[in-house]
Amino acid sequence: MKGVALCINPGATLVDICHTVPPQDIAGAAFVLSTVHEYFPARTVHLVVVDPGVGTGRRAVILRTATADFVAPDNGVLSYIIERYAAEPPEAGGRVELVPGPEAVAITEPKYWRAPVSATFHGRDIFAPVAAHLSLGVPPADFGEPVTELTVLPLTRPQRMPDGSLAGHIRHVDTFGNLITDIREGDLPPQSPAVTVEIGGHSISGLSRTYGADEGLLAVVGSSGCLEIALRDGSAADFLSAAPGDAVTISCIASY
Amino acid sequence: MKGVALCINPGATLVDICHTVPPQDIAGAAFVLSTVHEYFPARTVHLVVVDPGVGTGRRAVILRTATADFVAPDNGVLSYIIERYAAEPPEAGGRVELVPGPEAVAITEPKYWRAPVSATFHGRDIFAPVAAHLSLGVPPADFGEPVTELTVLPLTRPQRMPDGSLAGHIRHVDTFGNLITDIREGDLPPQSPAVTVEIGGHSISGLSRTYGADEGLLAVVGSSGCLEIALRDGSAADFLSAAPGDAVTISCIASY
Amino acid sequence: MKGVALCINPGATLVDICHTVPPQDIAGAAFVLSTVHEYFPARTVHLVVVDPGVGTGRRAVILRTATADFVAPDNGVLSYIIERYAAEPPEAGGRVELVPGPEAVAITEPKYWRAPVSATFHGRDIFAPVAAHLSLGVPPADFGEPVTELTVLPLTRPQRMPDGSLAGHIRHVDTFGNLITDIREGDLPPQSPAVTVEIGGHSISGLSRTYGADEGLLAVVGSSGCLEIALRDGSAADFLSAAPGDAVTISCIASY
Repeated sequence: MKGVALCINPGATLVDICHTVPPQDIAGAAFVLSTVHEYFPARTVHLVVVDPGVGTGRRAVILRTATADFVAPDNGVLSYIIERYAAEPPEAGGRVELVPGPEAVAITEPKYWRAPVSATFHGRDIFAPVAAHLSLGVPPADFGEPVTELTVLPLTRPQRMPDGSLAGHIRHVDTFGNLITDIREGDLPPQSPAVTVEIGGHSISGLSRTYGADEGLLAVVGSSGCLEIALRDGSAADFLSAAPGDAVTISCIASY
Repeated sequence: MKGVALCINPGATLVDICHTVPPQDIAGAAFVLSTVHEYFPARTVHLVVVDPGVGTGRRAVILRTATADFVAPDNGVLSYIIERYAAEPPEAGGRVELVPGPEAVAITEPKYWRAPVSATFHGRDIFAPVAAHLSLGVPPADFGEPVTELTVLPLTRPQRMPDGSLAGHIRHVDTFGNLITDIREGDLPPQSPAVTVEIGGHSISGLSRTYGADEGLLAVVGSSGCLEIALRDGSAADFLSAAPGDAVTISCIASY
Repeated sequence: MKGVALCINPGATLVDICHTVPPQDIAGAAFVLSTVHEYFPARTVHLVVVDPGVGTGRRAVILRTATADFVAPDNGVLSYIIERYAAEPPEAGGRVELVPGPEAVAITEPKYWRAPVSATFHGRDIFAPVAAHLSLGVPPADFGEPVTELTVLPLTRPQRMPDGSLAGHIRHVDTFGNLITDIREGDLPPQSPAVTVEIGGHSISGLSRTYGADEGLLAVVGSSGCLEIALRDGSAADFLSAAPGDAVTISCIASY
C-alpha cells in the first residue's frame, strides 16, 4: 500500500497509526482512529483498512470533514468519526444519516484504481491509490457518487440507573492492558473522590490522577477523555480477564 | 540501519516492508519481498537483512534489474526475484546462472562501509550504507566484483499427477493465518467452480472470490496471484495446524 | 505523538527506533537507546517515552550533548547516555551530577506544550511538542530550568574475582533471544580463544566470531561491543531460561 501511494504522490509523509489491531477487529480499529485523528495536521488523509468484507458488497467510502479526509470500507471502522455528524443518535448501529456539511462519497470510479483489482486486497488496489490522489488535491466527488448515509457499529453508552449509579462498559483494551470505558469525564459526578468503581467483582474507591499514583487496580481519566481501569505496573485486562463489552459501574455515596 | 542510511542520504524516503519475519526465516522474507517489490516506485532500493549467516562466508550482493535495486545477503532471500532472471529453472536451489541483462555485484569494496565492520551486524555496517549510496546514484560496479550466479532456495512447484490432479504446496502463512500456495491462477482449470481443494484431511468445493464470501474453510486466488486457503473470520493455519511445505491438492470432476 | 510533532514541524523525518520494549521496561529502553543513538545524523532529537511514572513527580528533561538532543522522562531511560557525562561512577543509580559540557534542562515551561495536558500521556502533550520545537531550533533553555543532576538506573559492571575470573551479568535480551552482557570487548583477556564462558550451568569454550560459526550455544562480541551469548539458529534466552541480571562468568586457563 505504501509503495502504491508513493508511486502516485512521492512527496507524501506516511505515518503508521497502528499495526497491532487484531484481524477482523473493526471496533478496535475504530476506537484507535478516534483517539488519534484530531492530533494530525489539518487535511491529513486517514486511510483505514481493517476490511474483513473486502471484495463483498460492502462499500468503500471517502468522508471529508472540516479538518480531514477518511478513506475506508463502510463497515463501521469510521463509527466514532461519523457519530459526530449523525443526524440522529447512532447507538443502534447500521446506516445513519449525516447532517449537512461533511462530504461523503462511495468510491465507484475505477479511473483512480490499480488494474486489475484483486478481490482480496482493496487496500493496495483501491484505498491506497484513492488516498494518494486525494492527498494531491483530487476532489472527493471525482471518486464516485455522493452518499448521505454511512455505517456505524452499535456504540455502547453509559446508562443512569434508578439507584443513581452509572452503568458503563469497557470499550477498548489498549496495549498496556488498560481498560478504556465509554464513561467520559463529563459523565462523572463533580465530587469524583467519593466515587466507587465496580468491575469484575472488584471495587475501586476514588479516582487516581495518574497510572503511578496508587497501588493495585485504579481508575483514572485517560488521555482519550474516558475513564480507564488500570493496574499499576501491570495489565488490568489480564488481572481481571476483562474484554470489550464488560460492565463497569460507577456509584457515589452522595447521589448525584 | 535507518540512522546510518540517513547520515548518507538525508532525503531518503524509508519504508518498512515487514518486521514480523521470524528470526532466520529466509524463505518467509523471500516470499514477502516477492509480493511487494513491484508496487514500489521505479528504482526503489530494496534492502533485505534476514541474515543468519552474517559474518560467515556468505556473500553480500546487489542485484540491479530493469526496475529496481536489491541489496541483500546471497542466501536465497532474493529467490523469487532471481527466479525471473535464471538461465535454467532454479527449482533445486543453490547458485543459478543469470540471463544477460540484470547486473549482479558481490559487495567487496570497503570504501562504502562503516568502519570497523561488526561481524554480527552487516545490516548496519555494510548493507545500509551500500543501499544509501546506491540511492544517491553510485553505480553497482563501484561496490565490488560482477557476478553471474546468485543463490536461490529450493522452490516448490505444483505437479500434475497421473490422475489429472495438481499436487501443490503451502508456500507461506500470512499474518491472518491464510495459507498461500505455490499454485498460480493460470495453473487452475478454466472451470474453476468444479474444482475440489484437499488440504490436511479437509475438502473444499469450488473457489470463492473473497475471504468473506463463504463460511468456514475456503479457497481463493489472493492478491499475490496464488491460490490461498483461508478461514472466514479466523486463521486457517491455526485451524489446520498447517505450515509451509504442506501438501495442497486440486482435483476436478472433469479431467483437464 | 507523530501527528503532534508534524503539526509543529511538518518537514521532520520521523524514525521509529523500537515499539517492542515491554510496558514499564525502563532498563530495556535505556539499553536499546544506547545501541542506536550514535548511528543517527548529528543533532538528531531522540524522544523516549517509556514512562510508567507519567503525571507523578518524576521530571521531564532535555539533555543536549555535543552530538544530539534527548527528550525523556528523568527515570533512568537515559542512563547509558548520562553515564558518559557523570562526574562520578554512577553504578549505584539515583541522581548523578554531570560534568560541565552537556546542557540539561527540566521541562517546566508550558508555552511549548499542548493544552490541556493529560496526566496520563505526556508523550503526546509534552514530549512530542517539545521535541518538535527543539528540532526547529528552539534552544533547550527556553523549555525550563537548567539542572545539573540526572537520574540513572543502577548499572551492573563485571567484577574481577580473586581467582582471576570475571563475573558479569546479562544486561539485555534482544529480539533474537541473544543475551547481551555487561562485559565489553576490552574486558576480555587478549588470548580470547582460551576463554571459558559459564552461564546457567552451561560452559562455552572459546569465543566465536559470528552467530553462524559454531553449533549450539556460543559466545560472541556483538555489534554493541559487548559479549553476547547466542544459540545458533535459536533463542539462547529460551534455551537457558535466562533474563537480565543473570550471572555470566569468564574464566581463562592462563590467569590474566
